[in-house]
Amino acid sequence: MSFTQRLRQVQIKQNSLLCIGLDVDVDKIPTHLQSTKNPMLEFNRQIIEATHDLVCAYKPNLAFYEARGERGTVTLRETLKLIPKSVLTIGDGKRGDIGNTAERYAKSLFDDFGFDSVTVNPYLGFDSVEPFLTNPEKGVFILALTSNSGSKDFQRLMVGTKPLYEKVVHTAKKWNVNQNIGFVVGATHPKELQRIRKIVPDIPILVPGIGKQGGDLKSSIRYGCDKHGQLAVVNASRSIIYASSGKDFAEAARAEAKKIVEEMRMYVGEVSN
Amino acid sequence: MSFTQRLRQVQIKQNSLLCIGLDVDVDKIPTHLQSTKNPMLEFNRQIIEATHDLVCAYKPNLAFYEARGERGTVTLRETLKLIPKSVLTIGDGKRGDIGNTAERYAKSLFDDFGFDSVTVNPYLGFDSVEPFLTNPEKGVFILALTSNSGSKDFQRLMVGTKPLYEKVVHTAKKWNVNQNIGFVVGATHPKELQRIRKIVPDIPILVPGIGKQGGDLKSSIRYGCDKHGQLAVVNASRSIIYASSGKDFAEAARAEAKKIVEEMRMYVGEVSN
Repeated sequence: MSFTQRLRQVQIKQNSLLCIGLDVDVDKIPTHLQSTKNPMLEFNRQIIEATHDLVCAYKPNLAFYEARGERGTVTLRETLKLIPKSVLTIGDGKRGDIGNTAERYAKSLFDDFGFDSVTVNPYLGFDSVEPFLTNPEKGVFILALTSNSGSKDFQRLMVGTKPLYEKVVHTAKKWNVNQNIGFVVGATHPKELQRIRKIVPDIPILVPGIGKQGGDLKSSIRYGCDKHGQLAVVNASRSIIYASSGKDFAEAARAEAKKIVEEMRMYVGEVSN
Repeated sequence: MSFTQRLRQVQIKQNSLLCIGLDVDVDKIPTHLQSTKNPMLEFNRQIIEATHDLVCAYKPNLAFYEARGERGTVTLRETLKLIPKSVLTIGDGKRGDIGNTAERYAKSLFDDFGFDSVTVNPYLGFDSVEPFLTNPEKGVFILALTSNSGSKDFQRLMVGTKPLYEKVVHTAKKWNVNQNIGFVVGATHPKELQRIRKIVPDIPILVPGIGKQGGDLKSSIRYGCDKHGQLAVVNASRSIIYASSGKDFAEAARAEAKKIVEEMRMYVGEVSN
């Protein structure tokens, strides 16, 4: 089964388009967990237990784990074991390197860590993405238009009549022979999200940037979903996992996730056929 | 002292522009090392011991270490300890992420691992590069035109009258307030290297792709150096570290590195004032 089909199945079964970003900053872990053996892992364990029925995916950003050295690598591996098989995982590393090197990253993320999908940076072109595409079951979200302010510096440059990020989408969709490519489009760019959804009507789009980064949930659903109200993967990180800094952090994360999912379901009802 | 000044000093002192890429593939490590406690580390130790007087830098590509999980992380850390202070280190990870995440990568690579410089991907724009730039002593090589075939897919797209990679150079050179920015331009593109050197006459350029990838050493020196015959950092990986697969691998690596350096010195003599 292709990654795109897997995503559809999970989104239907979970009745959710929500992805929670497990971008765990050790300094923000509640005090009462700091004395546990591995505070980061314990934090993730409780977040996952409290929210896994509400999400279609979890997305750990690799930087937060790498910043902890060997211990972070172990924590990431253990975190992935805690995620139920009913939910997909996205290894957010935005890797991009020449072919023979990209192979190593693909091996590490898919085979060693066992991620269901990853994010990759398109700047190095086809041979840098190709090693990630060989297994149809594994998804590859290619950065198109990111949620940050720097997205204007190069991604929005006009290449002929089209901005660069649209060229990326047009070019990379031709690589989608295994039905496992997706794109990343920040929730902070609703109009552009709408245009990209028209270019790729049935390809997954990961939409980060709601919550702390200021992206709007309604437009993310309205413009990010396909005609069945699927294939948008809307990510929130900090607004959910740091909803409370107290002992009730997991409960508060669940409440915040639930609020978002209920809102989502309402909007999905409005857009799908 | 800025990174650019540090690089000049090291290149003068070592009388070398050569960088050796420590892209160690465990399957290619000579058989007689496979029974040692940590074959990858032992391989690096012997390569470094045999070549450190011939180079200005070593460049481990992070993918090869990450592919080995926690053990790879330890090996990378231990490898860095083996590199003499007389030589610079380049953490080749080509990272690129939004500001608050890029900070983690910068912290990990500069503070935790202690790299002297890194490679970064420009696709996410200024806020993704900024966290790497704060310490003037630490260098940041921004990908411009990479050595691989995929470099044509997006890097060469015309943005108005200029290819994207030149726009990257023009934009990013304005960020160089701390004199610690460099660019990456593949040895496989000599004409483009010449043009970029004219745009940035006194900024370091990392030139990968000689050897196995087919880049030409003479043009890399002729077009990559500044007017003093400096600031090009010419990288070779596989052609040096796998010069022999036998017991003499370190000796053979030294012989290959020496051959390249002697050729380099000849070409530098021809270009510098």
